[in-house]
Amino acid sequence: MAAITPWRQLLLESIQANKHLKHSEYFQLATVRENGKPANRTVVFSSRCFIKPAQSWRFTFQYFTVTGVPDPNKANVKQFTIEEIKAQAFGEICWYFTDTREQFRISGTLDVIGEADRNAVRLKMRERAWFQSSPNSRLQFVGPSPGFPCPEGGPNDSTTPQLDPAQGPVENFCLVTLEPQEVDYLNLRKNKRYVFQKMGEFSWTQREVNP
Amino acid sequence: MAAITPWRQLLLESIQANKHLKHSEYFQLATVRENGKPANRTVVFSSRCFIKPAQSWRFTFQYFTVTGVPDPNKANVKQFTIEEIKAQAFGEICWYFTDTREQFRISGTLDVIGEADRNAVRLKMRERAWFQSSPNSRLQFVGPSPGFPCPEGGPNDSTTPQLDPAQGPVENFCLVTLEPQEVDYLNLRKNKRYVFQKMGEFSWTQREVNP
Repeated sequence: MAAITPWRQLLLESIQANKHLKHSEYFQLATVRENGKPANRTVVFSSRCFIKPAQSWRFTFQYFTVTGVPDPNKANVKQFTIEEIKAQAFGEICWYFTDTREQFRISGTLDVIGEADRNAVRLKMRERAWFQSSPNSRLQFVGPSPGFPCPEGGPNDSTTPQLDPAQGPVENFCLVTLEPQEVDYLNLRKNKRYVFQKMGEFSWTQREVNP
Repeated sequence: MAAITPWRQLLLESIQANKHLKHSEYFQLATVRENGKPANRTVVFSSRCFIKPAQSWRFTFQYFTVTGVPDPNKANVKQFTIEEIKAQAFGEICWYFTDTREQFRISGTLDVIGEADRNAVRLKMRERAWFQSSPNSRLQFVGPSPGFPCPEGGPNDSTTPQLDPAQGPVENFCLVTLEPQEVDYLNLRKNKRYVFQKMGEFSWTQREVNP
Protein backbone atom coordinates (compact mmCIF):
# COMPACT_ATOMS: atom_id res chain seq x y z
CA MET A 1 0.00 0.00 0.00
CA ALA A 2 1.56 3.26 -1.13
CA ALA A 3 1.31 6.78 0.16
CA ILE A 4 -1.83 8.88 -0.23
CA THR A 5 -2.44 9.69 -3.92
CA PRO A 6 1.09 8.62 -4.91
CA TRP A 7 0.57 9.71 -8.55
CA ARG A 8 -0.14 13.30 -7.49
CA GLN A 9 3.53 14.20 -7.11
CA LEU A 10 4.32 12.74 -10.55
CA LEU A 11 1.58 14.83 -12.15
CA LEU A 12 2.61 18.04 -10.39
CA GLU A 13 6.20 17.52 -11.55
CA SER A 14 5.08 16.94 -15.13
CA ILE A 15 2.93 20.07 -15.12
CA GLN A 16 5.89 22.05 -13.77
CA ALA A 17 8.42 20.58 -16.22
CA ASN A 18 6.18 21.26 -19.23
CA LYS A 19 4.64 24.56 -18.30
CA HIS A 20 6.61 26.47 -20.94
CA LEU A 21 4.53 24.57 -23.50
CA LYS A 22 1.12 26.05 -24.11
CA HIS A 23 -0.13 22.62 -25.04
CA SER A 24 0.51 21.14 -21.62
CA GLU A 25 -2.51 23.11 -20.37
CA TYR A 26 -4.85 20.90 -22.36
CA PHE A 27 -5.96 17.36 -21.86
CA GLN A 28 -8.62 15.19 -23.46
CA LEU A 29 -11.60 13.82 -21.59
CA ALA A 30 -13.31 10.69 -22.93
CA THR A 31 -16.84 9.76 -21.95
CA VAL A 32 -19.48 7.37 -23.29
CA ARG A 33 -22.55 8.68 -25.09
CA GLU A 34 -26.07 7.51 -24.43
CA ASN A 35 -25.83 5.40 -27.61
CA GLY A 36 -22.80 3.60 -26.21
CA LYS A 37 -20.30 5.31 -28.49
CA PRO A 38 -17.25 7.14 -27.19
CA ALA A 39 -16.95 10.92 -27.02
CA ASN A 40 -13.73 12.88 -26.65
CA ARG A 41 -13.05 16.59 -26.19
CA THR A 42 -10.29 18.97 -25.17
CA VAL A 43 -10.45 20.46 -21.68
CA VAL A 44 -8.37 23.40 -20.49
CA PHE A 45 -6.50 22.74 -17.29
CA SER A 46 -5.94 25.38 -14.67
CA SER A 47 -4.82 24.98 -11.08
CA ARG A 48 -8.46 25.69 -10.23
CA CYS A 49 -9.23 22.32 -11.83
CA PHE A 50 -7.93 20.63 -8.71
CA ILE A 51 -10.14 20.49 -5.72
CA LYS A 52 -9.21 18.72 -2.56
CA PRO A 53 -12.15 17.70 -0.41
CA ALA A 54 -10.15 16.22 2.48
CA GLN A 55 -7.23 14.38 0.88
CA SER A 56 -9.12 12.98 -2.07
CA TRP A 57 -8.11 14.85 -5.21
CA ARG A 58 -10.60 15.66 -7.89
CA PHE A 59 -10.61 17.41 -11.22
CA THR A 60 -13.30 19.89 -12.06
CA PHE A 61 -14.61 21.13 -15.38
CA GLN A 62 -17.30 23.56 -16.30
CA TYR A 63 -19.98 22.44 -18.67
CA PHE A 64 -22.96 23.68 -20.48
CA THR A 65 -26.21 21.86 -19.94
CA VAL A 66 -28.65 21.94 -22.82
CA THR A 67 -31.98 22.54 -21.22
CA GLY A 68 -34.11 22.74 -24.34
CA VAL A 69 -35.15 19.71 -26.36
CA PRO A 70 -33.48 19.73 -29.77
CA ASP A 71 -35.70 20.23 -32.78
CA PRO A 72 -36.33 16.64 -34.00
CA ASN A 73 -35.78 17.79 -37.58
CA LYS A 74 -32.29 18.81 -36.60
CA ALA A 75 -31.64 15.90 -34.29
CA ASN A 76 -28.67 14.68 -36.27
CA VAL A 77 -26.48 17.26 -34.67
CA LYS A 78 -24.19 15.63 -32.17
CA GLN A 79 -24.52 16.96 -28.67
CA PHE A 80 -22.37 16.72 -25.63
CA THR A 81 -24.85 17.24 -22.88
CA ILE A 82 -24.89 16.75 -19.19
CA GLU A 83 -27.51 14.07 -19.78
CA GLU A 84 -24.81 11.93 -21.32
CA ILE A 85 -22.63 12.17 -18.26
CA LYS A 86 -25.55 11.31 -16.05
CA ALA A 87 -26.26 8.22 -18.17
CA GLN A 88 -22.69 6.94 -17.94
CA ALA A 89 -20.85 8.52 -15.06
CA PHE A 90 -17.32 7.52 -16.01
CA GLY A 91 -14.60 9.49 -17.70
CA GLU A 92 -11.00 9.02 -18.69
CA ILE A 93 -8.55 11.89 -18.99
CA CYS A 94 -5.63 11.43 -21.33
CA TRP A 95 -2.87 13.94 -20.71
CA TYR A 96 0.31 13.79 -22.72
CA PHE A 97 3.37 15.90 -21.91
CA THR A 98 5.42 16.25 -25.06
CA ASP A 99 8.71 17.47 -23.60
CA THR A 100 9.08 14.86 -20.89
CA ARG A 101 7.29 12.16 -22.93
CA GLU A 102 4.93 11.24 -20.12
CA GLN A 103 1.32 10.13 -20.43
CA PHE A 104 -1.27 10.10 -17.66
CA ARG A 105 -4.49 8.20 -18.20
CA ILE A 106 -6.72 9.14 -15.30
CA SER A 107 -10.02 7.31 -15.07
CA GLY A 108 -12.71 7.90 -12.54
CA THR A 109 -16.27 8.73 -11.74
CA LEU A 110 -17.98 11.87 -12.98
CA ASP A 111 -20.34 13.90 -10.90
CA VAL A 112 -22.52 16.74 -12.11
CA ILE A 113 -23.49 19.66 -9.88
CA GLY A 114 -26.29 21.61 -11.49
CA GLU A 115 -28.66 24.31 -10.35
CA ALA A 116 -31.21 21.79 -9.07
CA ASP A 117 -28.75 20.19 -6.66
CA ARG A 118 -30.08 20.06 -3.11
CA ASN A 119 -26.76 19.92 -1.29
CA ALA A 120 -25.67 23.33 -0.01
CA VAL A 121 -21.96 22.43 0.06
CA ARG A 122 -22.10 21.28 -3.56
CA LEU A 123 -24.04 24.36 -4.64
CA LYS A 124 -21.42 26.51 -2.96
CA MET A 125 -18.73 24.66 -4.92
CA ARG A 126 -20.59 25.37 -8.16
CA GLU A 127 -20.94 29.04 -7.25
CA ARG A 128 -17.25 29.32 -6.38
CA ALA A 129 -16.29 27.80 -9.75
CA TRP A 130 -18.52 30.31 -11.52
CA PHE A 131 -16.91 33.32 -9.85
CA GLN A 132 -13.40 31.89 -10.28
CA SER A 133 -13.86 31.79 -14.05
CA SER A 134 -13.31 34.99 -16.00
CA PRO A 135 -16.32 37.15 -16.97
CA ASN A 136 -15.43 36.36 -20.58
CA SER A 137 -15.60 32.62 -20.15
CA ARG A 138 -18.90 32.99 -18.26
CA LEU A 139 -20.38 34.45 -21.43
CA GLN A 140 -20.20 31.08 -23.18
CA PHE A 141 -23.00 29.90 -20.90
CA VAL A 142 -25.25 32.74 -22.02
CA GLY A 143 -24.93 32.47 -25.80
CA PRO A 144 -26.84 30.09 -28.06
CA SER A 145 -26.69 26.38 -27.17
CA PRO A 146 -23.44 24.85 -28.49
CA GLY A 147 -23.86 22.28 -31.22
CA PHE A 148 -27.32 23.43 -32.23
CA PRO A 149 -27.82 24.55 -35.80
CA CYS A 150 -27.36 28.26 -36.19
CA PRO A 151 -29.21 30.56 -38.58
CA GLU A 152 -28.25 30.60 -42.25
CA GLY A 153 -25.22 32.80 -42.71
CA GLY A 154 -23.76 31.89 -39.34
CA PRO A 155 -24.41 32.94 -35.78
CA ASN A 156 -25.93 36.33 -35.28
CA ASP A 157 -22.96 38.26 -33.94
CA SER A 158 -24.89 41.48 -33.51
CA THR A 159 -26.53 40.18 -30.33
CA THR A 160 -23.45 39.94 -28.10
CA PRO A 161 -24.56 38.44 -24.79
CA GLN A 162 -24.24 40.58 -21.70
CA LEU A 163 -23.72 39.48 -18.12
CA ASP A 164 -23.43 41.38 -14.85
CA PRO A 165 -20.07 40.36 -13.28
CA ALA A 166 -21.76 40.20 -9.87
CA GLN A 167 -24.43 37.80 -11.09
CA GLY A 168 -24.25 34.22 -9.80
CA PRO A 169 -24.20 31.08 -11.96
CA VAL A 170 -26.74 30.98 -14.77
CA GLU A 171 -29.23 28.13 -14.97
CA ASN A 172 -27.38 26.03 -17.53
CA PHE A 173 -23.99 26.27 -15.83
CA CYS A 174 -22.86 22.93 -14.43
CA LEU A 175 -19.80 21.92 -12.53
CA VAL A 176 -18.51 18.46 -13.37
CA THR A 177 -15.98 16.69 -11.20
CA LEU A 178 -13.89 13.63 -11.95
CA GLU A 179 -12.75 11.64 -8.96
CA PRO A 180 -9.78 9.50 -10.00
CA GLN A 181 -10.08 5.76 -9.37
CA GLU A 182 -7.14 4.61 -11.43
CA VAL A 183 -4.09 6.28 -12.96
CA ASP A 184 -2.01 4.67 -15.68
CA TYR A 185 1.31 6.51 -15.89
CA LEU A 186 3.69 5.92 -18.78
CA ASN A 187 7.14 7.47 -19.02
CA LEU A 188 8.50 6.87 -22.52
CA ARG A 189 11.85 8.47 -21.80
CA LYS A 190 12.57 6.17 -18.88
CA ASN A 191 10.60 3.28 -20.40
CA LYS A 192 8.62 2.87 -17.19
CA ARG A 193 4.93 2.40 -16.53
CA TYR A 194 2.99 2.34 -13.29
CA VAL A 195 -0.65 1.66 -12.53
CA PHE A 196 -2.16 3.26 -9.44
CA GLN A 197 -5.49 2.05 -8.10
CA LYS A 198 -7.65 3.54 -5.43
CA MET A 199 -8.47 1.01 -2.75
CA GLY A 200 -10.20 3.20 -0.17
CA GLU A 201 -10.82 6.80 0.73
CA PHE A 202 -7.17 7.46 1.46
CA SER A 203 -5.33 4.46 0.11
CA TRP A 204 -3.87 3.63 -3.26
CA THR A 205 -1.92 0.69 -4.62
CA GLN A 206 0.99 1.16 -6.97
CA ARG A 207 2.22 -1.48 -9.37
CA GLU A 208 4.89 -1.43 -12.02
CA VAL A 209 3.79 -2.93 -15.33
CA ASN A 210 5.41 -3.49 -18.70
CA PRO A 211 5.52 -0.26 -20.70
CA MET B 1 -24.72 17.97 -50.11
CA ALA B 2 -21.11 19.10 -49.97
CA ALA B 3 -17.99 18.00 -51.79
CA ILE B 4 -16.32 14.67 -51.12
CA THR B 5 -14.83 14.61 -47.60
CA PRO B 6 -15.15 18.40 -47.20
CA TRP B 7 -13.37 18.36 -43.81
CA ARG B 8 -10.25 16.84 -45.32
CA GLN B 9 -8.93 20.15 -46.61
CA LEU B 10 -9.52 21.79 -43.22
CA LEU B 11 -7.53 19.07 -41.48
CA LEU B 12 -4.66 19.18 -43.97
CA GLU B 13 -4.42 22.95 -43.54
CA SER B 14 -4.37 22.62 -39.74
CA ILE B 15 -1.64 19.99 -39.86
CA GLN B 16 0.39 22.24 -42.16
CA ALA B 17 -0.16 25.40 -40.08
CA ASN B 18 0.83 23.67 -36.82
CA LYS B 19 3.61 21.40 -38.00
CA HIS B 20 6.32 23.45 -36.24
CA LEU B 21 4.72 22.24 -32.99
CA LYS B 22 5.82 18.78 -31.93
CA HIS B 23 2.53 18.37 -30.15
CA SER B 24 0.45 18.61 -33.30
CA GLU B 25 1.68 15.13 -34.22
CA TYR B 26 -0.36 13.64 -31.39
CA PHE B 27 -4.04 13.09 -30.99
CA GLN B 28 -6.17 11.20 -28.50
CA LEU B 29 -8.31 8.22 -29.41
CA ALA B 30 -11.29 7.38 -27.20
CA THR B 31 -12.89 3.94 -27.22
CA VAL B 32 -15.28 2.06 -24.94
CA ARG B 33 -14.05 -0.82 -22.80
CA GLU B 34 -15.80 -4.15 -22.46
CA ASN B 35 -17.12 -2.98 -19.08
CA GLY B 36 -18.75 0.05 -20.73
CA LYS B 37 -16.26 2.58 -19.39
CA PRO B 38 -14.36 4.97 -21.63
CA ALA B 39 -10.69 4.55 -22.55
CA ASN B 40 -8.42 7.24 -23.94
CA ARG B 41 -4.84 7.16 -25.19
CA THR B 42 -2.38 9.23 -27.19
CA VAL B 43 -1.69 8.18 -30.77
CA VAL B 44 1.18 9.44 -32.90
CA PHE B 45 0.11 10.77 -36.26
CA SER B 46 2.19 10.36 -39.36
CA SER B 47 1.19 10.88 -42.96
CA ARG B 48 1.19 7.08 -43.14
CA CYS B 49 -1.82 7.21 -40.83
CA PHE B 50 -3.96 8.21 -43.77
CA ILE B 51 -5.03 5.55 -46.16
CA LYS B 52 -7.29 6.20 -49.08
CA PRO B 53 -9.16 3.17 -50.32
CA ALA B 54 -10.93 4.82 -53.25
CA GLN B 55 -11.97 8.26 -51.98
CA SER B 56 -12.92 7.24 -48.51
CA TRP B 57 -10.32 8.44 -46.05
CA ARG B 58 -9.29 6.37 -43.09
CA PHE B 59 -6.89 6.65 -40.23
CA THR B 60 -4.68 3.75 -39.30
CA PHE B 61 -2.97 2.87 -36.05
CA GLN B 62 -0.78 0.01 -35.01
CA TYR B 63 -1.72 -1.95 -31.97
CA PHE B 64 -0.56 -4.73 -29.81
CA THR B 65 -2.87 -7.64 -29.28
CA VAL B 66 -2.54 -9.46 -25.99
CA THR B 67 -2.73 -13.11 -26.85
CA GLY B 68 -2.17 -14.61 -23.42
CA VAL B 69 -4.78 -14.73 -20.69
CA PRO B 70 -3.84 -12.48 -17.76
CA ASP B 71 -3.04 -14.12 -14.48
CA PRO B 72 -6.36 -13.86 -12.56
CA ASN B 73 -4.43 -12.82 -9.45
CA LYS B 74 -3.14 -9.83 -11.34
CA ALA B 75 -6.30 -9.14 -13.28
CA ASN B 76 -6.70 -5.68 -11.81
CA VAL B 77 -4.22 -4.31 -14.27
CA LYS B 78 -6.03 -2.28 -16.89
CA GLN B 79 -5.55 -3.51 -20.40
CA PHE B 80 -6.11 -1.98 -23.75
CA THR B 81 -6.53 -4.96 -25.94
CA ILE B 82 -7.81 -5.58 -29.39
CA GLU B 83 -10.64 -7.54 -27.77
CA GLU B 84 -11.99 -4.25 -26.48
CA ILE B 85 -12.11 -2.76 -29.95
CA LYS B 86 -13.85 -5.85 -31.28
CA ALA B 87 -16.48 -5.57 -28.53
CA GLN B 88 -17.26 -1.92 -29.31
CA ALA B 89 -16.08 -0.96 -32.76
CA PHE B 90 -16.38 2.81 -32.41
CA GLY B 91 -13.74 5.39 -31.74
CA GLU B 92 -13.49 9.15 -31.46
CA ILE B 93 -10.31 11.04 -32.22
CA CYS B 94 -9.84 14.39 -30.51
CA TRP B 95 -7.16 16.48 -32.15
CA TYR B 96 -6.46 19.95 -30.86
CA PHE B 97 -4.15 22.38 -32.68
CA THR B 98 -2.85 24.88 -30.15
CA ASP B 99 -1.54 27.57 -32.48
CA THR B 100 -4.58 27.90 -34.68
CA ARG B 101 -7.01 27.01 -31.85
CA GLU B 102 -8.83 24.39 -33.89
CA GLN B 103 -10.33 21.15 -32.61
CA PHE B 104 -11.31 18.16 -34.72
CA ARG B 105 -13.47 15.48 -33.17
CA ILE B 106 -13.50 12.63 -35.65
CA SER B 107 -15.76 9.73 -34.82
CA GLY B 108 -16.12 6.56 -36.79
CA THR B 109 -15.97 2.81 -36.96
CA LEU B 110 -12.90 0.85 -35.96
CA ASP B 111 -11.70 -2.19 -37.82
CA VAL B 112 -9.00 -4.58 -36.68
CA ILE B 113 -6.78 -6.45 -39.13
CA GLY B 114 -4.93 -9.20 -37.33
CA GLU B 115 -2.90 -12.18 -38.39
CA ALA B 116 -5.93 -14.45 -38.60
CA ASP B 117 -7.67 -12.22 -41.17
CA ARG B 118 -8.74 -14.13 -44.27
CA ASN B 119 -8.78 -11.26 -46.71
CA ALA B 120 -5.59 -11.05 -48.79
CA VAL B 121 -5.96 -7.31 -49.49
CA ARG B 122 -6.32 -6.57 -45.78
CA LEU B 123 -3.39 -8.79 -44.86
CA LYS B 124 -1.30 -6.96 -47.44
CA MET B 125 -2.30 -3.67 -45.81
CA ARG B 126 -1.18 -5.00 -42.43
CA GLU B 127 2.11 -6.17 -43.88
CA ARG B 128 2.73 -2.81 -45.55
CA ALA B 129 2.09 -0.98 -42.26
CA TRP B 130 4.58 -3.27 -40.54
CA PHE B 131 7.37 -2.54 -43.02
CA GLN B 132 6.57 1.17 -43.10
CA SER B 133 7.20 1.43 -39.36
CA SER B 134 10.79 1.74 -38.19
CA PRO B 135 12.66 -1.37 -36.99
CA ASN B 136 12.79 0.29 -33.59
CA SER B 137 9.04 0.71 -33.29
CA ARG B 138 8.53 -2.88 -34.45
CA LEU B 139 10.44 -4.00 -31.37
CA GLN B 140 7.57 -2.90 -29.12
CA PHE B 141 5.54 -5.81 -30.49
CA VAL B 142 8.22 -8.29 -29.46
CA GLY B 143 8.80 -7.25 -25.83
CA PRO B 144 6.71 -8.27 -22.82
CA SER B 145 2.96 -7.60 -23.05
CA PRO B 146 2.20 -3.94 -22.22
CA GLY B 147 0.24 -3.41 -19.03
CA PHE B 148 1.11 -6.76 -17.53
CA PRO B 149 2.87 -6.79 -14.19
CA CYS B 150 6.62 -6.95 -14.58
CA PRO B 151 9.09 -8.71 -12.29
CA GLU B 152 10.05 -7.11 -8.98
CA GLY B 153 12.70 -4.49 -9.60
CA GLY B 154 11.30 -3.53 -12.98
CA PRO B 155 11.46 -5.02 -16.46
CA ASN B 156 14.42 -7.20 -17.19
CA ASP B 157 16.41 -4.93 -19.47
CA SER B 158 19.14 -7.47 -20.06
CA THR B 159 16.99 -9.37 -22.54
CA THR B 160 16.72 -6.74 -25.29
CA PRO B 161 14.40 -8.14 -27.94
CA GLN B 162 15.87 -8.79 -31.37
CA LEU B 163 14.11 -8.74 -34.72
CA ASP B 164 15.31 -9.40 -38.25
CA PRO B 165 14.48 -6.24 -40.30
CA ALA B 166 13.35 -8.47 -43.18
CA GLN B 167 10.92 -10.40 -41.01
CA GLY B 168 7.21 -9.82 -41.64
CA PRO B 169 4.62 -8.80 -39.01
CA VAL B 170 4.77 -10.72 -35.75
CA GLU B 171 1.70 -12.58 -34.51
CA ASN B 172 0.47 -9.94 -32.09
CA PHE B 173 0.80 -7.01 -34.50
CA CYS B 174 -2.57 -5.58 -35.49
CA LEU B 175 -3.52 -2.79 -37.80
CA VAL B 176 -6.51 -0.78 -36.65
CA THR B 177 -8.34 1.59 -38.97
CA LEU B 178 -10.86 4.29 -38.15
CA GLU B 179 -13.27 5.20 -40.91
CA PRO B 180 -14.70 8.65 -40.14
CA GLN B 181 -18.50 8.92 -39.99
CA GLU B 182 -18.77 12.35 -38.44
CA VAL B 183 -16.40 15.27 -37.94
CA ASP B 184 -17.09 18.06 -35.46
CA TYR B 185 -14.81 20.98 -36.32
CA LEU B 186 -14.42 23.91 -33.94
CA ASN B 187 -12.40 27.03 -34.72
CA LEU B 188 -12.05 29.08 -31.54
CA ARG B 189 -10.17 31.89 -33.24
CA LYS B 190 -12.93 32.47 -35.78
CA ASN B 191 -15.67 31.36 -33.37
CA LYS B 192 -17.03 28.93 -35.95
CA ARG B 193 -18.15 25.33 -35.70
CA TYR B 194 -19.17 22.88 -38.40
CA VAL B 195 -20.49 19.34 -38.23
CA PHE B 196 -19.82 17.03 -41.17
CA GLN B 197 -21.72 13.79 -41.53
CA LYS B 198 -21.15 10.95 -43.89
CA MET B 199 -24.28 10.12 -45.84
CA GLY B 200 -22.97 7.57 -48.32
CA GLU B 201 -19.78 6.16 -49.74
CA PHE B 202 -18.79 9.45 -51.34
CA SER B 203 -21.14 12.03 -49.89
CA TRP B 204 -21.00 14.22 -46.80
CA THR B 205 -23.29 16.86 -45.38
CA GLN B 206 -21.94 20.02 -43.84
CA ARG B 207 -23.82 22.11 -41.29
CA GLU B 208 -22.82 25.16 -39.33
CA VAL B 209 -23.71 24.96 -35.63
CA ASN B 210 -23.31 27.23 -32.64
CA PRO B 211 -19.71 27.13 -31.35
